[in-house]
Amino acid sequence: MASSEETNDNVNKINIAKASEKVIHFKQDVWSIFTPLALKFNAVNLGQGFMNFLPPNFVKEAAVNAIFHNDYNQYSHPKGSLHLRKALADTYSPLLNRTIDPETEILISAGVIEGLYSLFAGLLDENDEVIVFEPFYNHYPEYITMNGGIPIYVTLHPQGDTSKTISSADWKFDINELRSKITNKTKMIVFNTPHNPTGKVFSTEEMIDISKVAREFNLIIISDEVYDRICYKPNIHEHIANLPEMWERTITLNSCSKTFGVTGWRVGWLIGPKNLISPILAAHTRIVFCVNAPLQEAIAISFEKADKENYYEINCQLYEERREKFMKILSDVGLPYTIPQGSYYILVNISKILIPSDYQYPPEIQFQTKDYKFCYWMTKEIGVVAIPPSEFYSEENKWLAQDYVRFAFCKTDDILDQAAIALQKLKNYIVD
Amino acid sequence: MASSEETNDNVNKINIAKASEKVIHFKQDVWSIFTPLALKFNAVNLGQGFMNFLPPNFVKEAAVNAIFHNDYNQYSHPKGSLHLRKALADTYSPLLNRTIDPETEILISAGVIEGLYSLFAGLLDENDEVIVFEPFYNHYPEYITMNGGIPIYVTLHPQGDTSKTISSADWKFDINELRSKITNKTKMIVFNTPHNPTGKVFSTEEMIDISKVAREFNLIIISDEVYDRICYKPNIHEHIANLPEMWERTITLNSCSKTFGVTGWRVGWLIGPKNLISPILAAHTRIVFCVNAPLQEAIAISFEKADKENYYEINCQLYEERREKFMKILSDVGLPYTIPQGSYYILVNISKILIPSDYQYPPEIQFQTKDYKFCYWMTKEIGVVAIPPSEFYSEENKWLAQDYVRFAFCKTDDILDQAAIALQKLKNYIVD
Repeated sequence: MASSEETNDNVNKINIAKASEKVIHFKQDVWSIFTPLALKFNAVNLGQGFMNFLPPNFVKEAAVNAIFHNDYNQYSHPKGSLHLRKALADTYSPLLNRTIDPETEILISAGVIEGLYSLFAGLLDENDEVIVFEPFYNHYPEYITMNGGIPIYVTLHPQGDTSKTISSADWKFDINELRSKITNKTKMIVFNTPHNPTGKVFSTEEMIDISKVAREFNLIIISDEVYDRICYKPNIHEHIANLPEMWERTITLNSCSKTFGVTGWRVGWLIGPKNLISPILAAHTRIVFCVNAPLQEAIAISFEKADKENYYEINCQLYEERREKFMKILSDVGLPYTIPQGSYYILVNISKILIPSDYQYPPEIQFQTKDYKFCYWMTKEIGVVAIPPSEFYSEENKWLAQDYVRFAFCKTDDILDQAAIALQKLKNYIVD
Repeated sequence: MASSEETNDNVNKINIAKASEKVIHFKQDVWSIFTPLALKFNAVNLGQGFMNFLPPNFVKEAAVNAIFHNDYNQYSHPKGSLHLRKALADTYSPLLNRTIDPETEILISAGVIEGLYSLFAGLLDENDEVIVFEPFYNHYPEYITMNGGIPIYVTLHPQGDTSKTISSADWKFDINELRSKITNKTKMIVFNTPHNPTGKVFSTEEMIDISKVAREFNLIIISDEVYDRICYKPNIHEHIANLPEMWERTITLNSCSKTFGVTGWRVGWLIGPKNLISPILAAHTRIVFCVNAPLQEAIAISFEKADKENYYEINCQLYEERREKFMKILSDVGLPYTIPQGSYYILVNISKILIPSDYQYPPEIQFQTKDYKFCYWMTKEIGVVAIPPSEFYSEENKWLAQDYVRFAFCKTDDILDQAAIALQKLKNYIVD
């Protein structure tokens, strides 16, 4: 016992707010650092991957109509609204070459993030291992560790001369490295195509290699396909669930965010066999109970209208124009980059840029990797925000990202034009 | 190793979909049983607590306007939209007698459920104990166990002659029972006022008793106040955070669902001291990342307009009329009940009703408690859905609920009138 009320109270204050072991080691989220920095320094924000333009009219109209129907303002079923599940079954049945059952094979999640979190909560036990391709969307490992799992990394390495522009197809993994990482605790492989941040669209051959390993070692494949509708010709997005005997061991995740340009709507979905969806539903029901109903209804209608409006092709064409425009901007500055086969990101090689060595960083940036410091410097001095990809690597491999930054080009022409002007200033810091 | 490919494959199929230890013991959610049953038997649904009427115009209009502004269709900050956090700070600062900092003392969650889940994820370690008042919203214990905690129950018991109508104030707990349940592993007390399912509004004296225990044993109070704006005169909803030295150890949770009649919007919030909010934010960022943005904006505007429209008072008056109407229906049938001081639920005592002993139940109902069977029977034979409150009790205390069912009266007059007609049929089964 403490000797006085006051001392006791101080001791208590320390204990009461102690973060759990699950979260105590987490750093501040990169997105909540750089998006506010963009505002602070009035910089062009090509960091976080959100659109600065409105969703298409048919999507907005569907949302407005939903608000005026009471059913869509109240709880939906924990599985998700039946209308959306049916619209998704209609959309995905031809893509996955099977008749998908909206009652048992689809689960609507509060965005792909909650879908992934619930998936790991529903399927992982203490010390189960999960193979994660690196670089990865930055929070993947945290969803795994919070649910008792252990992330194990397999790294994509750029091939060839990275001082020149390469294709995202040149980012490759070694199938023997993947095999070597598998133990009797391995339960899943987390896979993302088109891939953030490289833009890589995994080839059929690569997916066959992965699927062979999954079958051989009886692993679940978690396929995050949120950029599937932003895939540049001649590249074709393929579903790993379609490979032989893969449906029964694959959960395919996607959301409305990228396809319909509404990253703030938080409506995602998981598609897979009933026996895998069922434990995820059990977790999801306790984690969020259900997903916002009016925007589920709006996405159901949007899927029904998208094909008639030829929306996917028009939207992808617009992204291709943005990609061409931004690649030209980078070429004009004289920086090499990775041409993305899909997604709306470009990884740029910054090894030629020299930041003054006496540049002063705030304490939270000072001890970060070079790419992190570069992004801070570029935000403040050049006026353009990008994201440091070291955030997408495991602790021991962050150095692999030190010469790269990730730009998002899901922006209107005027924003890209402003970025073009600002990025010209980088030329003053290039040393050949 | 299995002796053949085929055998191996069968063994594998069993393993791959095994639910985690976190969820494997969960039963099917009561809401996803009875809401579909209402549709199946075309019964009047007074089960799940959602409104069958549209939200007020100023709330709908705010949502529609948000859809037409791009900022509100994209990711919000993980803390929540600044506009909503400011509107909540303006609303709650006078209620909690302090200037609330929207940057550090408010977190927007994907409904109160995700808020609670993130709270337990951010603050509970393995085997931490959490005191839960029983009856409780049915999933509370599951949020706790999924995050490694152990729920410990303190029971509210109805006082007096329960064969007659009583007040929800007559549901009381024993402060010595609460004290006796505290160990050196106790970390929190979960508290809910106005209380679901009894309608009890905890008195100042009861809250003082609880707060003394919280201070003495250095516990966090989790105060779920989602029915705070539906509190019938002369009862007054008070905030436990306002008691001496309680702010620093209290997280107050609430949401738009009940206040604005939009249970499907999934926008909730947590208010508390920075050192408690901070680990919850760390968890929340990994569980859902952020909350749907357009409906956050709509709720910000709704809070700004509600006072001017005198909305809270008008809305509460409407609920009071519904309460009176439904109590009269029950009195006409001849059933005793608990008069709720707050919320839109009524617990009804069904001990006088005799269901034919040879009644046939489907297998998923057959082995449930009496109240559960009663709710199935009433749905099918009487045409009215209620919720079995045994779902709101720990396994060992489910029998305490066997003579009760919970009706929700957040419904339009025509629905309550239909219920009145259908419930008359119960008279044929009353034995005095």
